[in-house]
Amino acid sequence: MDSSRFAQTPQPPYWAVIFSNQRSDADGGYGEMAERMVTLAAQQPGFLGMESTRDAAGFGITVSYWASEADIAAWKANAEHQVARQLGRAQWYAGFELRVARVERAYAMRKPEAT
Amino acid sequence: MDSSRFAQTPQPPYWAVIFSNQRSDADGGYGEMAERMVTLAAQQPGFLGMESTRDAAGFGITVSYWASEADIAAWKANAEHQVARQLGRAQWYAGFELRVARVERAYAMRKPEAT
Repeated sequence: MDSSRFAQTPQPPYWAVIFSNQRSDADGGYGEMAERMVTLAAQQPGFLGMESTRDAAGFGITVSYWASEADIAAWKANAEHQVARQLGRAQWYAGFELRVARVERAYAMRKPEAT
Repeated sequence: MDSSRFAQTPQPPYWAVIFSNQRSDADGGYGEMAERMVTLAAQQPGFLGMESTRDAAGFGITVSYWASEADIAAWKANAEHQVARQLGRAQWYAGFELRVARVERAYAMRKPEAT
């Protein structure tokens, strides 16, 4: 199991941005921009981690975790992120839902790696 | 675009259960049980919708939406769901994170269907 797929979040409370999205057929530059946004988000104050997956039909869910609402607002206002969001709306996404939520409880399960 | 992949949630506040998980190699009965749990969850009081996706590496995120924390607790206590959760821990998942969060803000974007 690739444990790095899970965000290593602290004890609640903290915040989550749930971004459910359907990719369009347009692809120009999407992969590079997505990678850049992951790198940039990880450098922001209050960033706690991210989990992301997408199926073969292009339906994806990315959840990023943040220490506070103010940290989410600052990330939203980041200039480079704003450009990416505009391109996302214009080109890369056929639709999305974005929800900002306060995580109140959490628990985890991990099995030992198979040997 | 398959708009049915998005949950049709009301205005916040409402609640989200974010279930990030890595499937194991064990498969016996997983697909049938997953379908049954979707059907059963949709019959519970306070169920608002669900979004789910999984990539080729078996990493999945399912987010279910609920009207209240009490509705989430009632679903957790559902007897058939408890059996599924035990099987999930024992067989189907190599690891997971489950987070219960209160959705405070939400917005959406949809493009017209291509013609």
